[in-house]
Amino acid sequence: MKQRTRPRIPGLIWRVLRLGIFATLFAAGPAPAQLLDFPKDRLVEYSELNPFDRFADGRPKVPDGLLRRARELSAEEIWAVLEDKGYKNQYADGFRILHPDKPMVGRAFTVQFMPMRPDVEHIAEAKAKQRGIGPLMNQTAIDMLQPGDVLVVDLFGKKVGGTIVGDNLFYYVMTATKGGGLVVDGSIRDLNGISEIDMPAYFKEVDPTPIDNVMLTGINVPVRIGGAVVMPGDLVVGDREGVYFIPPELVKEVLDRADEIRVHDEWTKKKFAEGKYKSSEIYSSPKDPRLKEEYQAYLKQRLEEIRKARARQEK
Amino acid sequence: MKQRTRPRIPGLIWRVLRLGIFATLFAAGPAPAQLLDFPKDRLVEYSELNPFDRFADGRPKVPDGLLRRARELSAEEIWAVLEDKGYKNQYADGFRILHPDKPMVGRAFTVQFMPMRPDVEHIAEAKAKQRGIGPLMNQTAIDMLQPGDVLVVDLFGKKVGGTIVGDNLFYYVMTATKGGGLVVDGSIRDLNGISEIDMPAYFKEVDPTPIDNVMLTGINVPVRIGGAVVMPGDLVVGDREGVYFIPPELVKEVLDRADEIRVHDEWTKKKFAEGKYKSSEIYSSPKDPRLKEEYQAYLKQRLEEIRKARARQEK
Amino acid sequence: MKQRTRPRIPGLIWRVLRLGIFATLFAAGPAPAQLLDFPKDRLVEYSELNPFDRFADGRPKVPDGLLRRARELSAEEIWAVLEDKGYKNQYADGFRILHPDKPMVGRAFTVQFMPMRPDVEHIAEAKAKQRGIGPLMNQTAIDMLQPGDVLVVDLFGKKVGGTIVGDNLFYYVMTATKGGGLVVDGSIRDLNGISEIDMPAYFKEVDPTPIDNVMLTGINVPVRIGGAVVMPGDLVVGDREGVYFIPPELVKEVLDRADEIRVHDEWTKKKFAEGKYKSSEIYSSPKDPRLKEEYQAYLKQRLEEIRKARARQEK
Amino acid sequence: MKQRTRPRIPGLIWRVLRLGIFATLFAAGPAPAQLLDFPKDRLVEYSELNPFDRFADGRPKVPDGLLRRARELSAEEIWAVLEDKGYKNQYADGFRILHPDKPMVGRAFTVQFMPMRPDVEHIAEAKAKQRGIGPLMNQTAIDMLQPGDVLVVDLFGKKVGGTIVGDNLFYYVMTATKGGGLVVDGSIRDLNGISEIDMPAYFKEVDPTPIDNVMLTGINVPVRIGGAVVMPGDLVVGDREGVYFIPPELVKEVLDRADEIRVHDEWTKKKFAEGKYKSSEIYSSPKDPRLKEEYQAYLKQRLEEIRKARARQEK
Amino acid sequence: MKQRTRPRIPGLIWRVLRLGIFATLFAAGPAPAQLLDFPKDRLVEYSELNPFDRFADGRPKVPDGLLRRARELSAEEIWAVLEDKGYKNQYADGFRILHPDKPMVGRAFTVQFMPMRPDVEHIAEAKAKQRGIGPLMNQTAIDMLQPGDVLVVDLFGKKVGGTIVGDNLFYYVMTATKGGGLVVDGSIRDLNGISEIDMPAYFKEVDPTPIDNVMLTGINVPVRIGGAVVMPGDLVVGDREGVYFIPPELVKEVLDRADEIRVHDEWTKKKFAEGKYKSSEIYSSPKDPRLKEEYQAYLKQRLEEIRKARARQEK
Amino acid sequence: MKQRTRPRIPGLIWRVLRLGIFATLFAAGPAPAQLLDFPKDRLVEYSELNPFDRFADGRPKVPDGLLRRARELSAEEIWAVLEDKGYKNQYADGFRILHPDKPMVGRAFTVQFMPMRPDVEHIAEAKAKQRGIGPLMNQTAIDMLQPGDVLVVDLFGKKVGGTIVGDNLFYYVMTATKGGGLVVDGSIRDLNGISEIDMPAYFKEVDPTPIDNVMLTGINVPVRIGGAVVMPGDLVVGDREGVYFIPPELVKEVLDRADEIRVHDEWTKKKFAEGKYKSSEIYSSPKDPRLKEEYQAYLKQRLEEIRKARARQEK
Repeated sequence: MKQRTRPRIPGLIWRVLRLGIFATLFAAGPAPAQLLDFPKDRLVEYSELNPFDRFADGRPKVPDGLLRRARELSAEEIWAVLEDKGYKNQYADGFRILHPDKPMVGRAFTVQFMPMRPDVEHIAEAKAKQRGIGPLMNQTAIDMLQPGDVLVVDLFGKKVGGTIVGDNLFYYVMTATKGGGLVVDGSIRDLNGISEIDMPAYFKEVDPTPIDNVMLTGINVPVRIGGAVVMPGDLVVGDREGVYFIPPELVKEVLDRADEIRVHDEWTKKKFAEGKYKSSEIYSSPKDPRLKEEYQAYLKQRLEEIRKARARQEK
Repeated sequence: MKQRTRPRIPGLIWRVLRLGIFATLFAAGPAPAQLLDFPKDRLVEYSELNPFDRFADGRPKVPDGLLRRARELSAEEIWAVLEDKGYKNQYADGFRILHPDKPMVGRAFTVQFMPMRPDVEHIAEAKAKQRGIGPLMNQTAIDMLQPGDVLVVDLFGKKVGGTIVGDNLFYYVMTATKGGGLVVDGSIRDLNGISEIDMPAYFKEVDPTPIDNVMLTGINVPVRIGGAVVMPGDLVVGDREGVYFIPPELVKEVLDRADEIRVHDEWTKKKFAEGKYKSSEIYSSPKDPRLKEEYQAYLKQRLEEIRKARARQEK
Repeated sequence: MKQRTRPRIPGLIWRVLRLGIFATLFAAGPAPAQLLDFPKDRLVEYSELNPFDRFADGRPKVPDGLLRRARELSAEEIWAVLEDKGYKNQYADGFRILHPDKPMVGRAFTVQFMPMRPDVEHIAEAKAKQRGIGPLMNQTAIDMLQPGDVLVVDLFGKKVGGTIVGDNLFYYVMTATKGGGLVVDGSIRDLNGISEIDMPAYFKEVDPTPIDNVMLTGINVPVRIGGAVVMPGDLVVGDREGVYFIPPELVKEVLDRADEIRVHDEWTKKKFAEGKYKSSEIYSSPKDPRLKEEYQAYLKQRLEEIRKARARQEK
Repeated sequence: MKQRTRPRIPGLIWRVLRLGIFATLFAAGPAPAQLLDFPKDRLVEYSELNPFDRFADGRPKVPDGLLRRARELSAEEIWAVLEDKGYKNQYADGFRILHPDKPMVGRAFTVQFMPMRPDVEHIAEAKAKQRGIGPLMNQTAIDMLQPGDVLVVDLFGKKVGGTIVGDNLFYYVMTATKGGGLVVDGSIRDLNGISEIDMPAYFKEVDPTPIDNVMLTGINVPVRIGGAVVMPGDLVVGDREGVYFIPPELVKEVLDRADEIRVHDEWTKKKFAEGKYKSSEIYSSPKDPRLKEEYQAYLKQRLEEIRKARARQEK
Repeated sequence: MKQRTRPRIPGLIWRVLRLGIFATLFAAGPAPAQLLDFPKDRLVEYSELNPFDRFADGRPKVPDGLLRRARELSAEEIWAVLEDKGYKNQYADGFRILHPDKPMVGRAFTVQFMPMRPDVEHIAEAKAKQRGIGPLMNQTAIDMLQPGDVLVVDLFGKKVGGTIVGDNLFYYVMTATKGGGLVVDGSIRDLNGISEIDMPAYFKEVDPTPIDNVMLTGINVPVRIGGAVVMPGDLVVGDREGVYFIPPELVKEVLDRADEIRVHDEWTKKKFAEGKYKSSEIYSSPKDPRLKEEYQAYLKQRLEEIRKARARQEK
Repeated sequence: MKQRTRPRIPGLIWRVLRLGIFATLFAAGPAPAQLLDFPKDRLVEYSELNPFDRFADGRPKVPDGLLRRARELSAEEIWAVLEDKGYKNQYADGFRILHPDKPMVGRAFTVQFMPMRPDVEHIAEAKAKQRGIGPLMNQTAIDMLQPGDVLVVDLFGKKVGGTIVGDNLFYYVMTATKGGGLVVDGSIRDLNGISEIDMPAYFKEVDPTPIDNVMLTGINVPVRIGGAVVMPGDLVVGDREGVYFIPPELVKEVLDRADEIRVHDEWTKKKFAEGKYKSSEIYSSPKDPRLKEEYQAYLKQRLEEIRKARARQEK
């Protein structure tokens, strides 16, 4: 419930700054006000393998239908494909989770903060002012969120003053993203109020202070969350364990493989429930040729059913 | 379910002690048996700004009506006033919380323990005996609790042997304080049993051992809980995040400001729910003059309603 | 959902191994394939005080009736007897707990892993092959579980690759042990899936990776879990706080004492609820002779009732 | 190199304070300005077993000659006596140590800080002013140090703003205590400068900030340092491992036992160096009767030598 | 002694990549191969206050003469100016320090790594190849170092595989920077070898593995080291406590103020050594008017001497 | 300087034990008294690849000549071979190191402790007594040490009561092993005394208490130290970073490869010192064909010199 505190500007030096000494530099062009820049052409270049449409800003747009399917994914199902393709670092955990029984799925909208540094901050703000966009703050980024986005924020694990939102802005994020979600390597405030809002969130800490002593340094730039690199437009999936950031080019394969895994697990548990087998006779794959056959038939049939059900649902 | 183990007393030296060698010293007066003393006149002196009545022991007595109102407070609402007044250290967190969805509100009753030191302990016990009050232990303090109190205990983060209560004494604390609550920088035992008792509690650890290898050094003395100083009689408020210790002189202001904040947040979310505004047009305060006006009218009306409702309730 | 990755075997050296150079050594006898051996005679020797039957493998078999009674135990009740008998190290905590409101009770089935070391692993596997039992892995042990067992696993706190089971094998453990339970000083995977399975579990971490870079070094050998030594056949009891490993020879005494403690606590709380007493008049034992008498009568009557009720139930 | 920042005083309320509203309260007597009070009579009472002289303020004064002897003590030698007497908590470690090869020995001069709390601080300062002693700060205590003292400070582990001294005040402490020493459960600053000053120090952290956001709450009050209780006048001994706080009544016994231990270890190593014995034949005491005799004779002779040498030295 | 392991490239997808599908994108221009770009014009813009020359790449070039003077700075002297100007976040600590008694001074040359992500890495390498610069790795950055540089590396605290250099490359860094130094939020290897090389270094961990499972994402971009933001060209100063990153525009003021502080401390200690004053009579500034005068005269004279000595030295 | 405290034996039960009820069980044979057994035939089996002689107890005996050569090894040189052969887990770090500039080299003599458990301990002691070997304690193992051994102890990270040796026994270990060394995942005591003894040691903690509340469970059994598996007879090498446990079959290869690495690094630094090359022109291998040739010639010549020098030395 309080806006981010602006840094107190040390005297003399900044007076010079305000006199417009930067005018010529800023005249040039459309570079963003914040410190780090990851323009559309670089984003497109570095997400070249994206098989889907893109947003106007260049972010890959995983289709809504796949987002719906992704709501059933678990971390292990995703791991199976990503590990296989050599992506070992797309997972982050160690979060406190709001509504852990509610899956989080959406497209990554990334924001980066760094510790406040007055000279850098002042120039960023002068540029922002010149371009008529007001001081850079958490709301600058939050106001750009789209339906289906998950807000992914690098606040470098900051607790005190590292609170990306309280209950008001958390509520706004929910309405703007249509319940997408939040991942912050930092903290939130107003946990009492936030607990009543029906959107999943992954955060490291909770603190009563508002965001402070930081500066917004990037919007939709590549960010690091724990041991994972997040690119804008990645598919973000959170379950009870942690959060996966899936490159768009792997989304379809993850979802298809997940169908198989789910059928596999269904069959495996059915067999275990019969109480006739040792685990190694059935799992990870049946040893007996007849069981193998039985499984293959089951798999084929259930996948068909799943696909049909999905087709019906999509209509 | 076991009383605190008494320290084994090393032989020879204490035999001398028992012969009453301290008689003259103790004759003097009403100083308490425990090591640290914070007599009534000092307490009154250091809580001079208290606008309310006091208990017989000098503790400020925040009125019951304000305790009731305080049940709606959240950590952020308290932060708003305390930060503003220069109180940056009245908050403690990092607790495990029992019944986190149930607010904890009450007046601080403080207790301090220190690691056992036989010479000090023995003298304290000799003094206690002389004054006919039995050995000093956790129950000495617990038996002094009043309705509306929250028991605030400094056990210096001790886990093993740092268990202020098990389920029996926790139950007693609930009956004696009428459900006030417990904050302990230490541990509790009997979590299974305690979980069934309807009183909020904030503790660092859980352990099966009873309290041991410590000595009671102060009752209603100023104590430090994490980074906060707690004075006897402070208003204690716990929510899902942590615990605030509010000096009596700030209670009224905190409660009044909280009313405003709650109306502000109510209006803000209503506006966000309409889906027509960017967050920065509404929050932290509306930019558009007409919206500003709308908000002011809403605030005025709702505060009146709240006050009326409260007045009805108080009757 | 994935089988344990086998270690990649470094080339040349192992080719030699496969030529059967160990044949003579292995010819000898029935020593197990895994690195560490705790044969039946040693187990019997070291659990000589066991008053109950034994499994074929020598493990003490705490009777089913006592397992049922043990479902009501709490960590503190167990502490009372074990501390008294000089067993200070039979408790482990610091776990994340699945279904904390559901007690875990069973007989310890222990498994030990160590970090993978190719020379040791290769010899263990050559021995296993020779004896026709396939590669040693988590399922080797899991397939030996009996009804009433709790699987107790030393994975030395390993998170990544230290996942003893995912949801499929967790489901198998539940069916094989009839809902016994799991304690792992390591991690599990598939928390989403596991959360839906009705068996208690105590684990340190959760990770999406399958078990990897470890070797199975012992089945039903003595293992260390945190600060506790677990012998095969110990009674394992888990509550909301942690896990106790009770030597068979103390089980009966623990259960009987627990009855008394429960009656004591029942009476104590009743007295507190009356609101007439200070805690120290009643607890830990009543001071007033008449109350003492009242308590003794109550205790006697309630213990009788409990025994009768139990007798009825057992029929 | 910067004085402690005074807390910014929140407006209105304090204006009242300054008008002298406390005058009557303060008139009473000689109670100290700081929050916590441990007056001379209590100190004498709680250190009744002290066999030595006292300072004017009541602190036990372990004689200079014993301080000199104590320079040879190691933590283990002290442990031997204290454990035996039931003092299990008089040791603290986990410090960074300045000049670890230089023993630290002296009489405890204790200081306690708590987090800043404006209402309490303001009253303490008003009282100080009234008594003409200026604002309470770290130098208030430091200026009271005597030769042979070790400054023992509870700054509750605070790093940023928890710096009891920089190089200037560290130099002052060295001159005032004649090289006594410093133990702080908090931090120091100016490590570069301090490293060049020849006095041992035990501290938790180093930070460039000056002391801030704390208030001085006690001088020569009992303080807790880690798991130890320190009474003013305790003998403080620091070695490479940590710091022992020895009650005055045990000093003589510790020193005498240490002589024996040192002779014992001297003889034991001599025997080991001969290479003829297994460790258990010699240590912890010789098994063979002839060796026992040899040891007893050696012990007797060496203790005599030590005492004579000491007597010569004392002259 | 081993080159960074290249990521194993997952099959099919990359075959497409290698066919040159990116040709058109890359044709454009001189953007760097690595993921993040902070081109010269942005660097100049964001370091506009730099009063000194610049390197060809835009980095501010603090003059060699000032680097020499900076060798005498301590963290506290820097803190005095930076705090005053509102720069609270330019300090990082928690490092293991090589040669802590040797000051580290130089101009920041920054490098950023992120966890390996195959799609991003592959595109970065394709771009690098197209521009003829070989695969991006730690040596790519290291080969660009200039005399007087300090290599500042963000390896996000990685221990295993987070080793920026072993002894060979550490030796190279020393020759290339003329003994500048190294700061890495990550690890080094070959500590035995490195210990013999005479250049200061600040690192979090030591590990025997070579750098692995990361990708180079930025050279001379703004990086975060702990709680500090480092801009390319910042003056880096390391002492026994930690590392300061000083914006070029503040370097002169820091150095001048440090002269005063050193004279102040010299005088203060001289006074303390006389043994006639309490610390508060002298420090932080003398209270007595005559002493004030004495100090002012001393300060003036010593500053003159220092400046003259410096002038002689510079010749 | 104090022998390990024996566990207090709980009454009744043990009286039975003492009556010799185990006599028949113990009659059988030569199994060791301690809980875990790893008899000679298993040790030989599991170290089948050992190319060297063995001790009488079956431990591989890496020859003295190779021990001498191994004194020059660094962790990175060992890593190069072990990683290559698939041994990823033979390294442990996180120790405090005594005499870090003195290499530690020797053959692993392993000891395992577990937390005290009275029933197990009592049976072990009864067995020991029957076989005439006195109570099992740290000295039981220490008295078996041979010249060239390094004592490797699993005390599961225990600090208080986890002290394997004080200065007396440390001195004994030095004389018995001829300066071999100590690695303990636990603590030591008497750091002051130990610091003066010229043998390297790797330990986690220091504490003044003697070893307590543990039982000796294995001598020369496989143990886990951190993430490494240590087999009796492994070559132990410690440097400034940590400790490597090298299987005997890899010792020769490690030493030979280390020669090459040292020559490689020598040449690389010589080239860097010339100041004419970028690091990537030289390192990790020279790019230029003529430099390649130069390097090959240098390598050949230096290896010859080294071998000749070594041959001379061996004579």
